[in-house]
Amino acid sequence: MALRVVGVDPGLTRCGLAVVDVENTRRATLVDVTVVGTSSDTSLDERLLAISRGIDAWLDQHRPDALAVERVFSHTNVSTVMGTAQASGIVIAAAAARGIPVALHTPTEVKAAVTGSGRADKAAVGRMVAKILRLEAPPKPADAADAAALAITHGWRGAAPGSQASGTKAGGSSGLTPAQRAWAQAETAARKTGPRR
Amino acid sequence: MALRVVGVDPGLTRCGLAVVDVENTRRATLVDVTVVGTSSDTSLDERLLAISRGIDAWLDQHRPDALAVERVFSHTNVSTVMGTAQASGIVIAAAAARGIPVALHTPTEVKAAVTGSGRADKAAVGRMVAKILRLEAPPKPADAADAAALAITHGWRGAAPGSQASGTKAGGSSGLTPAQRAWAQAETAARKTGPRR
Repeated sequence: MALRVVGVDPGLTRCGLAVVDVENTRRATLVDVTVVGTSSDTSLDERLLAISRGIDAWLDQHRPDALAVERVFSHTNVSTVMGTAQASGIVIAAAAARGIPVALHTPTEVKAAVTGSGRADKAAVGRMVAKILRLEAPPKPADAADAAALAITHGWRGAAPGSQASGTKAGGSSGLTPAQRAWAQAETAARKTGPRR
Repeated sequence: MALRVVGVDPGLTRCGLAVVDVENTRRATLVDVTVVGTSSDTSLDERLLAISRGIDAWLDQHRPDALAVERVFSHTNVSTVMGTAQASGIVIAAAAARGIPVALHTPTEVKAAVTGSGRADKAAVGRMVAKILRLEAPPKPADAADAAALAITHGWRGAAPGSQASGTKAGGSSGLTPAQRAWAQAETAARKTGPRR
């Protein structure tokens, strides 16, 4: 029983999209990965429309159990932060329109989940993504590898209440799909039958 | 020949939506105004979906010639700025999907256009919106009045290149609808035949 997770690294120029199947053994397999977006000399409305069409097609093609997107912070002092937030809004609404639960993860959470260190650099994240997914090299460009890392992070965390955008604000399992519930139950059962500590 | 403009004051809790018909005499008439949004105890994905459905229905009902949305700044030090940016991204993509040209206006531009002062307070903007639209009182809440002010500002400015999100980045008239082109031509003709200065 695998949980199919779409990971999204939002952006106007390069929006990374990945699909990863995560088994309850934590084995993770890359199903597909791509980058959508437009050059910065395109008008803002055309750029956001390209993101919208890209995520719609991706979700309809892969029908994931969950979507994980990078949490964007307003104190990030980068000129691209507003465009990134606008793209993430479109991605989240596209998932919600399809009843797909949405989770937000910070870059630090993602780095810690895949490398063990919240301060890992891009190259280290890419290397670990390749290793986890049993690939010869990290997905290119870095936005694609980051999207895969987000999907792995979410798949491994399951439905951690604190990171959920879906369901009630306090979290809980109300926003889970049947596949997610089954997976959470399987994980609980595995814990119960595992070796005593 | 009136230009039908939808003005949007984006936000997750209260997203103001207004429809204003602006004639080339500058006479502006309020067609409809509403506020969509959800309370802050709703999950982010449900909130963004509510905005998405609200703007989709509004655009399909009113079929405007243009959409004007408030430009959101990343240096705005408010906890709601990221949600506002996410909502604005959804609104801009909804217009782009329908081929409706999008313009961004700053709060200062809007205040200056309707009151003559870029430093006007909310109450002054509301009073002038009521006066311009020949209403007994400003639309309530303030988000609705701000949306109407955005629509008036854009209708009066026409297709000012610097404020366009549509078309090429440098602006120009390539993103105009037939009605907008006719209106721009009428305005140019009115200038040519007007009194010499």
